[in-house]
Amino acid sequence: MTPSGNQGDSQAYLNKKAVFAKVLTIYGRKPVLEALEQEGISPFRLHLADSNKSAGIIDDVTRLAKAKGAEVLYHSRAALSRISKNSKQDQGVALDIQCQGFTTFAEFEQNLPTHFDLIAADAVTNPQNLGMIIRSVCASPCTALLLPNQGCARLDALVIKASAGTLFKANIIRCDDLNDAIVQLKKHNAQAFALTGGGEHNLQNLPLDGRNVYVVGNETHGVSPAIIKSCQHKLGIPMANAVESLNVSIAASLVAFHRLYR
Amino acid sequence: MTPSGNQGDSQAYLNKKAVFAKVLTIYGRKPVLEALEQEGISPFRLHLADSNKSAGIIDDVTRLAKAKGAEVLYHSRAALSRISKNSKQDQGVALDIQCQGFTTFAEFEQNLPTHFDLIAADAVTNPQNLGMIIRSVCASPCTALLLPNQGCARLDALVIKASAGTLFKANIIRCDDLNDAIVQLKKHNAQAFALTGGGEHNLQNLPLDGRNVYVVGNETHGVSPAIIKSCQHKLGIPMANAVESLNVSIAASLVAFHRLYR
Repeated sequence: MTPSGNQGDSQAYLNKKAVFAKVLTIYGRKPVLEALEQEGISPFRLHLADSNKSAGIIDDVTRLAKAKGAEVLYHSRAALSRISKNSKQDQGVALDIQCQGFTTFAEFEQNLPTHFDLIAADAVTNPQNLGMIIRSVCASPCTALLLPNQGCARLDALVIKASAGTLFKANIIRCDDLNDAIVQLKKHNAQAFALTGGGEHNLQNLPLDGRNVYVVGNETHGVSPAIIKSCQHKLGIPMANAVESLNVSIAASLVAFHRLYR
Repeated sequence: MTPSGNQGDSQAYLNKKAVFAKVLTIYGRKPVLEALEQEGISPFRLHLADSNKSAGIIDDVTRLAKAKGAEVLYHSRAALSRISKNSKQDQGVALDIQCQGFTTFAEFEQNLPTHFDLIAADAVTNPQNLGMIIRSVCASPCTALLLPNQGCARLDALVIKASAGTLFKANIIRCDDLNDAIVQLKKHNAQAFALTGGGEHNLQNLPLDGRNVYVVGNETHGVSPAIIKSCQHKLGIPMANAVESLNVSIAASLVAFHRLYR
């Protein structure tokens, strides 16, 4: 929703949201240090609590952040908590990183490619699974990961670790509500596939062009019924030995890489 | 090696080893309880330490084991440690399970199928990765997982959990040394592929018949140089966005399921 009905204001609001969507705030001394040590990341603001006692790791973090051109800001403990949104684990340190591959759904929708393959994550709550999905989608021929702001694991140190650091360069489209996004994409002639048992589609007959979105679901409950209903297609992966299901990051990867077999 | 040069003795020794290979011993109160609660498993001996104090979970474990036809045996604490091989974590409880899908390399070699696809794990030390590989290979069209007795994660509670319980029904060939096994398989006209960067093979041109073994390697170091040397082929998975590598369980799965795309 825009705060004003004015078309110009609405555009400015969307632009602001798109810039904001590229910012990933991480926290915790070791996660921030590890991120700063990674090549190719673009940190632009290091936030430190006034209350931090002198420590080697704080010095290292500050030095690395400055060397990479980031501004160093000092805050009260309370203000830092508001920035990290996790006072229990921030350890007085937070870092804003510019992730060029992050975008809002609205921005993506404004410049919709003629062909795309998206992997969408519906309530993937285990950070290791989400991190592995990010790593695989980033390495795959897919266009991007469609990730709702609510319901999935938060993009924290566990996700970064499981993503093997690819989170910072991955193409990730953030949407407010996954079902709404799928409904919108269908209006633009996208085909939506829910990864669930059965279904008329399998890995052999996935489309090689057009606009496609493949939804993987929660570790225990699978894709939610409302989203299965919104998808035009069901996609099943046949399994041997009466195995009931695959790990969600494996299922997402088998779909994400399908073009490499064709 | 056989303890005697006599052909009959040698065969008896191999048979005994093959029976032994089907036995998986797990330990720890909760892991044993969870295994016993699983459908389709065949426990045949429950080992309890004399020193166990009365506890609800011990009663549950004993009742379930008896209901599934297992013998209940009591041991000194020291004897139980020798059975579990992990006195720190066995909590006075161990369970022998018959896994019909487990076999020795010698037994597999004696009845070599005309066509097979094996996934081989070389120094996969993370139990979550090994468990996910077991789950995927079990669900895939592959014949079995070739797993050396040394160098990979031990088949413990963490592996069982990550395998989503499929470990008990998975086809797993245990070998003493992976390199020796590959050398032997090549004598039987098998094609061995090392999953490593580059290589002339990719997911599009994997063989659809014959005898094939695909080796995935350690999480940090990849497939070991000696094994790469033993393999006739290198298999690479092209990656976008300059991602350096995939998680080993994802790479194994992309190969294990290749027939489903063809």
